[in-house]
Amino acid sequence: MNETMVCAVGNVATPPVYRDMASGPSARFRLAVTSRYWDREKNAWTDGHTNFFTVWANRRLAVNAAASLNVGDPVMVQGRLKVRSETRDGQQNWASADLDAVAIGHDLSRGTSAFRRSAQPEAAHASPQPEPNWDTPQDQSADPAGQQQPEPAAVT
Amino acid sequence: MNETMVCAVGNVATPPVYRDMASGPSARFRLAVTSRYWDREKNAWTDGHTNFFTVWANRRLAVNAAASLNVGDPVMVQGRLKVRSETRDGQQNWASADLDAVAIGHDLSRGTSAFRRSAQPEAAHASPQPEPNWDTPQDQSADPAGQQQPEPAAVT
Amino acid sequence: MNETMVCAVGNVATPPVYRDMASGPSARFRLAVTSRYWDREKNAWTDGHTNFFTVWANRRLAVNAAASLNVGDPVMVQGRLKVRSETRDGQQNWASADLDAVAIGHDLSRGTSAFRRSAQPEAAHASPQPEPNWDTPQDQSADPAGQQQPEPAAVT
Amino acid sequence: MNETMVCAVGNVATPPVYRDMASGPSARFRLAVTSRYWDREKNAWTDGHTNFFTVWANRRLAVNAAASLNVGDPVMVQGRLKVRSETRDGQQNWASADLDAVAIGHDLSRGTSAFRRSAQPEAAHASPQPEPNWDTPQDQSADPAGQQQPEPAAVT
Repeated sequence: MNETMVCAVGNVATPPVYRDMASGPSARFRLAVTSRYWDREKNAWTDGHTNFFTVWANRRLAVNAAASLNVGDPVMVQGRLKVRSETRDGQQNWASADLDAVAIGHDLSRGTSAFRRSAQPEAAHASPQPEPNWDTPQDQSADPAGQQQPEPAAVT
Repeated sequence: MNETMVCAVGNVATPPVYRDMASGPSARFRLAVTSRYWDREKNAWTDGHTNFFTVWANRRLAVNAAASLNVGDPVMVQGRLKVRSETRDGQQNWASADLDAVAIGHDLSRGTSAFRRSAQPEAAHASPQPEPNWDTPQDQSADPAGQQQPEPAAVT
Repeated sequence: MNETMVCAVGNVATPPVYRDMASGPSARFRLAVTSRYWDREKNAWTDGHTNFFTVWANRRLAVNAAASLNVGDPVMVQGRLKVRSETRDGQQNWASADLDAVAIGHDLSRGTSAFRRSAQPEAAHASPQPEPNWDTPQDQSADPAGQQQPEPAAVT
Repeated sequence: MNETMVCAVGNVATPPVYRDMASGPSARFRLAVTSRYWDREKNAWTDGHTNFFTVWANRRLAVNAAASLNVGDPVMVQGRLKVRSETRDGQQNWASADLDAVAIGHDLSRGTSAFRRSAQPEAAHASPQPEPNWDTPQDQSADPAGQQQPEPAAVT
C-alpha cells in the first residue's frame, strides 16, 4: 500500500550483476532514462534530463534478465521506487533511486525480440514475498563500490 | 497533457493484426491483464478480475510487435489509455479500452528474450506525431467486427 | 499483483452517489478526463479525446468524497482500473471503465482547498480489504441506469 | 517523451517555501511517502520504507499549494520524476529525488476539503512551458541547505 510504482523506458547502462543469494537469485543493473522534449525554437526533439536508476530483480526475473540483457539494450521496467539516502559524518548525504522490478522487457519500438518461455512454473506466484531489506542490501558488502560509482555515460 | 498513462502486464490474447496505412505501419492486438490477490482464507494467490485492452502500435513499434509477438506471450505495455464508447439506436452503448502504445516488451519474469536492434534510425523521433483520429479508426471499416468480438479466454 | 493502477486528472461529471452498504460506506461518480495537446498548426493547446471513468470509493474515502466533491470540481484520482464488459442476447456488448479509488484529491492547479482531517482513526488500515465483487455491483440493482446513462458533457 | 511520471500518496513533511521568480511563482516542499505492507506473522499492516521527494510546483499550482498545504497534511502528487546527483571533489555524491508536480491534492481518504476555484484563467494552458533548469535550481543559492538538510521524521 502506498507503494510508488514507476514505469521507466530507457537503456541498460551497466552489465547486469548476478548473485545467488540465500534468499534466491538476485540481479541488478543501472538504467538510464533520458527524457526528450520538443524544442520549438530548434523545431526538433531534444534530449532533456537523464535519470539513473539501480534496477533490482529477484528470482526468475533475475535469472532471465541476466541471461537476456546487455549494455545499451533499450528496455522498459516496471517497479517499486525506493529512494535511499545515507548521512555520513552527520553531514554528507548520498542517495540513490532504486527500482524493485516487477517486470522488465526489451522495448519493441527499438528492435525485435525472440521470446522463449521459462520451462519451470513461476514459483514467485506461489506465495507472497517478504520485502527485501533495502536498508542493508545483502550483496553490498561484497561490492562496496555499489551504487556510488560514477555514472556511466547514458547509452541511447 | 492530462493524458492517462497506463503500464499493463499481461498476455497477448489475439494474433497481432498488421496493416500498412497511409499514415504508416499500424498493428493491434488484444491484451489480457489478470490481477492476482492473496486470499487469506485459501492461503494462496488467486486470480481476480481480467481487464482486456486493445493495444495499438504505430510505425517501427508496429513492425517489430507484429514480428515478435504471438498469442500467449507474456508482455508489458506502456501506453495512453483511451476509453471509447458508442451509442446506437439511442440506446445501446458499447465501449472499449484502448492503449495507444508507447513501448511494448516481453516480460522477462516469464522467460528470456533475444533482442535484435532495428537497423534503421527511428523516424518517430524526427518529429512530433499527429494524434491519430481515434473516433474513426482507419482500419475499422475493413474489419467491422473489430473490438466487439467476444473476448477470448485469458491466457496465463 | 498485476493490478493496473491509473492516476487520472480531470473533472467531476456527475454528483457523487452515496450509499450505506452492508460492507460499509460506498460512493461513486463519473470522472471526465480530457487530454490536451499542442497543435502546431494552430499554435495553441487543443482539447483531445475525453475519457469517462466511473470512480468508486469505499469507507472513509466514500464519506469524505461525498462531503467534499461537487459537479465540475477539478480532481485527481489514483485507483485500480477495471474494464468491465457485458454481453447481452449473445450479441450486444457494453463496457465501462471503472476506477477503484485509492486516493482522491482536489487539484490545486485549479484552486485552493481548506483541508480538515477526519477525527476517527482510519479503520481501512486495520486489515486488508476483501475485493469488492465488481461483476455484480451491489448498488446497481437499486440504480439500473447506473453507468449506462448518456455521458454528460465534459466540464472543464 | 520518455518522462517518468509518478503518482505518490504521502504527507507534507516541510512547510512549503514560496518564491516569486523571474519565470513566475514557484513553491517546493518535502513529501514523505511511507509504504505499508501486510505482515502475515503479525497479522497486521506494518510500515515499510519511507521515500522522501522534493516536490516543485510552478505558477498557479505554486500559489495554491503555498496557500493550502501545511506540514502533516496527507496529499497526493502527480509529477515528473527527476533524480539529480552531484559529484564533489571527484568523490562525494549526493542525490535527490524531485517531483516536478503536474497536480497536487489533499487526500480525501484522510479528511474533507473545501475547494475554491481560482478566479483567473489558468495561464499555464495558454502555451507550452519551457522546461525549468533542474541542474541549477534558481532559488537554491538563496537557500543552500536546500535539499541536503536532515530528513524530518515522517508525518503519518
